[in-house]
Amino acid sequence: MAQVDLNCDMGESFGIYQMGTDTQIMPLVSSANIACGFHAGDPSVMRKTLEAAVAQGVALGAHPGLPDLVGFGRRNMQVSAQEAYDMVVYQVGALAGFAKAAGVSLHHVKPHGALYNMAAKDKALADAIARAVRDIDASLVLYGLAGSQLIQAGKNAGLRVASEVFADRTYQADGSLTSRSQPNALLQSDEEAVQQVLTMVTEKRVKAVTGEWVSLDADTICIHGDGAHALSFATKVRAALLQAGVEIKAM
Amino acid sequence: MAQVDLNCDMGESFGIYQMGTDTQIMPLVSSANIACGFHAGDPSVMRKTLEAAVAQGVALGAHPGLPDLVGFGRRNMQVSAQEAYDMVVYQVGALAGFAKAAGVSLHHVKPHGALYNMAAKDKALADAIARAVRDIDASLVLYGLAGSQLIQAGKNAGLRVASEVFADRTYQADGSLTSRSQPNALLQSDEEAVQQVLTMVTEKRVKAVTGEWVSLDADTICIHGDGAHALSFATKVRAALLQAGVEIKAM
Amino acid sequence: MAQVDLNCDMGESFGIYQMGTDTQIMPLVSSANIACGFHAGDPSVMRKTLEAAVAQGVALGAHPGLPDLVGFGRRNMQVSAQEAYDMVVYQVGALAGFAKAAGVSLHHVKPHGALYNMAAKDKALADAIARAVRDIDASLVLYGLAGSQLIQAGKNAGLRVASEVFADRTYQADGSLTSRSQPNALLQSDEEAVQQVLTMVTEKRVKAVTGEWVSLDADTICIHGDGAHALSFATKVRAALLQAGVEIKAM
Amino acid sequence: MAQVDLNCDMGESFGIYQMGTDTQIMPLVSSANIACGFHAGDPSVMRKTLEAAVAQGVALGAHPGLPDLVGFGRRNMQVSAQEAYDMVVYQVGALAGFAKAAGVSLHHVKPHGALYNMAAKDKALADAIARAVRDIDASLVLYGLAGSQLIQAGKNAGLRVASEVFADRTYQADGSLTSRSQPNALLQSDEEAVQQVLTMVTEKRVKAVTGEWVSLDADTICIHGDGAHALSFATKVRAALLQAGVEIKAM
Repeated sequence: MAQVDLNCDMGESFGIYQMGTDTQIMPLVSSANIACGFHAGDPSVMRKTLEAAVAQGVALGAHPGLPDLVGFGRRNMQVSAQEAYDMVVYQVGALAGFAKAAGVSLHHVKPHGALYNMAAKDKALADAIARAVRDIDASLVLYGLAGSQLIQAGKNAGLRVASEVFADRTYQADGSLTSRSQPNALLQSDEEAVQQVLTMVTEKRVKAVTGEWVSLDADTICIHGDGAHALSFATKVRAALLQAGVEIKAM
Repeated sequence: MAQVDLNCDMGESFGIYQMGTDTQIMPLVSSANIACGFHAGDPSVMRKTLEAAVAQGVALGAHPGLPDLVGFGRRNMQVSAQEAYDMVVYQVGALAGFAKAAGVSLHHVKPHGALYNMAAKDKALADAIARAVRDIDASLVLYGLAGSQLIQAGKNAGLRVASEVFADRTYQADGSLTSRSQPNALLQSDEEAVQQVLTMVTEKRVKAVTGEWVSLDADTICIHGDGAHALSFATKVRAALLQAGVEIKAM
Repeated sequence: MAQVDLNCDMGESFGIYQMGTDTQIMPLVSSANIACGFHAGDPSVMRKTLEAAVAQGVALGAHPGLPDLVGFGRRNMQVSAQEAYDMVVYQVGALAGFAKAAGVSLHHVKPHGALYNMAAKDKALADAIARAVRDIDASLVLYGLAGSQLIQAGKNAGLRVASEVFADRTYQADGSLTSRSQPNALLQSDEEAVQQVLTMVTEKRVKAVTGEWVSLDADTICIHGDGAHALSFATKVRAALLQAGVEIKAM
Repeated sequence: MAQVDLNCDMGESFGIYQMGTDTQIMPLVSSANIACGFHAGDPSVMRKTLEAAVAQGVALGAHPGLPDLVGFGRRNMQVSAQEAYDMVVYQVGALAGFAKAAGVSLHHVKPHGALYNMAAKDKALADAIARAVRDIDASLVLYGLAGSQLIQAGKNAGLRVASEVFADRTYQADGSLTSRSQPNALLQSDEEAVQQVLTMVTEKRVKAVTGEWVSLDADTICIHGDGAHALSFATKVRAALLQAGVEIKAM
């Protein structure tokens, strides 16, 4: 039976600032990527988010980002591979502290925002992140963009990896995402997005904007947790997958 | 044979800012309290400091502080017990991440600056810190001011505790430190300080400024790592202890 | 003709984090207290908020806070008078930069949260804040709690001051606010709050919880900008004041 | 008579962290670039540095940087032009607050580190910075790398500009600096560096590493304030310029 993971970025509130709809989205996904205080999140938010995920049986992931709170970790920064290693160890360690305090274990690591995007293309950065994850806990699953340097780095480091795909983004013939600067970067309807997900999960391929079919791994699907539309779309994807006999669970 | 621990705050550099004389002081002490990024330290400094301590066989401690980098964690902040719990879990977890990556374990936790001082007097805060330490790892030793609420909280939480004494500070008849605002807060010479250390370690008592002898536990002595005088004084204390047949080692 | 100022804390968003209902509340008030990046706000939020206030003809105020973003500046911190002076100059200066860039001038300064509360009682802190405001621009109005040390410090520094009152808080016989830890700290209905405002503004007195009438200055009324209830209450207060012939404008 | 400005980055301490030799270097230079709290500096350091510069008659400059304290503003960040505008207004405004409080005026603005380097090449970023400076105070001088986009942007914005040259760096035939990644990026001796400065200032040209003479403006020379060598080199440059009859003063 086919299976896939639905993951969502969570715990991105900070102090009294609220972000996302964690409470409502939590029951719809199988794994949570919890912000670790650099791009979002704070110690108290981390603890509460972890406890909520544990209560729902959702797999626990660390979501380390660049040290750029005001930019929400979305702005590329020229960090060295060693700095990336160190900031991943720090952030994963901090969340692992809350996991230990709650008597549970982390399941995965998914870099956030600009760190995720840079690590998709930059081999040295990807290797540093993969080594950081392995050095902290070699049983952690590394989540990365399907076909990216980060996935390759995870394999090279001996980690289990989860190739991530996006429901609402379009793909190029080489398997890369269409840049958001392009007019056709996004699918136009929920129906198209749900259909793309089903095809990716059950056929392990996606139709590029240029018409070709492209092979890709689709271990985990990124579910957005913010915006008015997020909940209804997550509900639709989930229902379509279950109806197609796909099991929704973390690796 | 009597034994005592010499501890020193370390890893308090930040980015390109240098602080302390970690390299020179490391061989003189038996345990290192490593800053965790809130009042001082950053991920790269933490990794390097931990590696240096491991290389010298010095016991590894987390040194969590208040989130006040510009104030170096020395300004009291009205944090709730829950916030204190969360910030300790976060910081100890982060350093534990570097320990895991290096294949070693943490040995102790010593709160820093204002957090240490507030926890000496505030039972709720002390309890929260002790629970945080226990919840992360019940085998960690909690360092606190001798006779303080933090030591009591550690015992109540079932932790091993290390009562800390100060070589160069004077004591009141109730066992508390003379406030730094008083003219006689500090001993006047290295010789007096070394003698006070020897008495505290071997006789488990100290002579108060008012002349009475006061009982106190002296499990660990705080060695300052900064200032021109730090190294020479650490060398003197160490030599005097060894000459008196006291073993210098972490609990 | 009686007049009063309605002020509201604004510009408390940060990065992608949204806070408050600035757009809707702006037309209802006569002065805006704009966060300056320490407890909330960032450079881009400050510029946009200032531009919005200018567009509505709302008086521009700086709202400096403690350097505690995660605590939203609400946690007391033991800052020295000199540190308070410096942080106020820095923050007011930063907002004044945006005012200069927009070709306008600042009108007032209102400290935020814990800094406001501490300065209400601590004469040294209040004096330092008043001197900072005067040294930057002696024409700025200093907003503070009616009857507080901060109002007195502003007068002593030769500044114009605006005594602030609260619509929904109850008062003690000595003119101080009933502590929020007390069950009767808040008035129970909008009607009571509106009536209290009218009395304070037109009669310069308030009825204490113990029944006595207490004299107080009521130059400016704090309007909360957050929460579902904020807009409707602001609308009610505004309507009641106008109907009573009170002019709503900044000093 | 020829004249040139000697500028030095100052006020880069932070909290208890000390950086640079401001006190000793101050009498040797004619203009100070004072860090504004983003890459270095804090409100108290800013005030003290400004007061020291005023006492020595050194021209006051703002030295705004990227919001990257741990990286000392040296890591490129993908900030938008609008974000750069806003962060420059904020930082220059903050320092201008201290200048107003001291009864003096700012003289110039020199971006720091990565912001300086990115603005040398990126026209949109350079324009945003120049507009920020002009909008705050059109009488401020904009310091930038000789021949850079930032200098051109300053001219386009109607600002006076100061073209900066480096004593110890080598130049390419197109007038750009030899990249630090190249083995011949630095001159080998103080004598060569002093000679290069004299030639740049008095002949307005420099000999490229490839042997050609390249024209360049040399309005201001960057003097490093950190490192054991800084003071002795500044003293030598200063003496050589004075002996050659060059007046040392800010524009």
